[in-house]
Amino acid sequence: MSELSERSGTPVPTIKYYQREGMLPPGEPVGTTRTRYDGTHVARLRLIRALVDVAGLSLDQVRGVLAVIDDETTDRTAAIASAHRLLSPPPNEPPSEEARRRVTRLMDGRSWLGAREEAHALSLAAAIDRLERSGQPLPDSALEEYADAATEIAEVDLAALGGELRDAPDATTYVVLGTLLVDPVLVALRRMAQEDLARRSRGEADS
Amino acid sequence: MSELSERSGTPVPTIKYYQREGMLPPGEPVGTTRTRYDGTHVARLRLIRALVDVAGLSLDQVRGVLAVIDDETTDRTAAIASAHRLLSPPPNEPPSEEARRRVTRLMDGRSWLGAREEAHALSLAAAIDRLERSGQPLPDSALEEYADAATEIAEVDLAALGGELRDAPDATTYVVLGTLLVDPVLVALRRMAQEDLARRSRGEADS
Repeated sequence: MSELSERSGTPVPTIKYYQREGMLPPGEPVGTTRTRYDGTHVARLRLIRALVDVAGLSLDQVRGVLAVIDDETTDRTAAIASAHRLLSPPPNEPPSEEARRRVTRLMDGRSWLGAREEAHALSLAAAIDRLERSGQPLPDSALEEYADAATEIAEVDLAALGGELRDAPDATTYVVLGTLLVDPVLVALRRMAQEDLARRSRGEADS
Repeated sequence: MSELSERSGTPVPTIKYYQREGMLPPGEPVGTTRTRYDGTHVARLRLIRALVDVAGLSLDQVRGVLAVIDDETTDRTAAIASAHRLLSPPPNEPPSEEARRRVTRLMDGRSWLGAREEAHALSLAAAIDRLERSGQPLPDSALEEYADAATEIAEVDLAALGGELRDAPDATTYVVLGTLLVDPVLVALRRMAQEDLARRSRGEADS
């Protein structure tokens, strides 16, 4: 277990806690004092850590995502979609009618497949409301341009998933983890590009 | 103060705490029992809430951002850049040499103005390391495509800042708040576009 702890970067007491909670399958006993853990244990721990540390999910929410991943009766693509949906916990307060209408209009305009009134669509409506309340309403033109960029990003995301991978047993873990861990990459790149543009508009030249 | 609490969505005890900590300027006394607060108090409270709730900054980090905003000796663009930089707290562990080299190469390739070894660049290197450790290394081609999309996003961000605004006294607040509050918009749009593409690749048609 100390080796598992090292390979996954998770303290031993935390690993024991996840096992007690049924989030991490037990290892295979080898003799009386040793237990064998394999790559699936390491992958599972990394997934839990990313869900907690990067996505900021509560342990209950993590349990929901793991249950979907472990449910072998659903097909892979459906499992990916459900796990994904659990990453957008419902907003604290219901978004306004107006914001929800804007999101529906955006999705209809792009013929986007996907539920109009749940998960990501609700998160988006809530984020639009928050901008509105902060005194910085997001115009439709900016929303459309952000949606264009998001589509390009999603195309890169999905290209990383070759055809073979899509049916691999750990495809759901792969997609969920990839989605979460790429978020900070995109946040950092946006800030870097902003800084570059801001400095240029201020008249700084390459040095 | 109860009115300020209502307009900013912040509980009264929290407002009092921010005042004691010097994060929120006092209101103007009107008579002996009333105090007048204005739009700058509401804006300040919204900024603090966004820094805490959306960006997940600690109160110490929030204090740093506010100090930069309040420092009238720096010019606006420099203030925006510094406040921005404080939004990327240094990663918990220093990123690997290899990841830092990749970030430098990316920035050099695009002639991006901005420090190579601090703030956002370090956050990006740390995010690249995390993907590597999770067993899902990010190829250079994907990194470049994400950087293209991030540039488009930053252009939309900066277009929202007209020339007049750039020198307005609350320009820094505006930029910092806008940057933070748009992050969840982009996260939701990415998930929505992913879901659309995944469903299409699975053969689902418009309904």
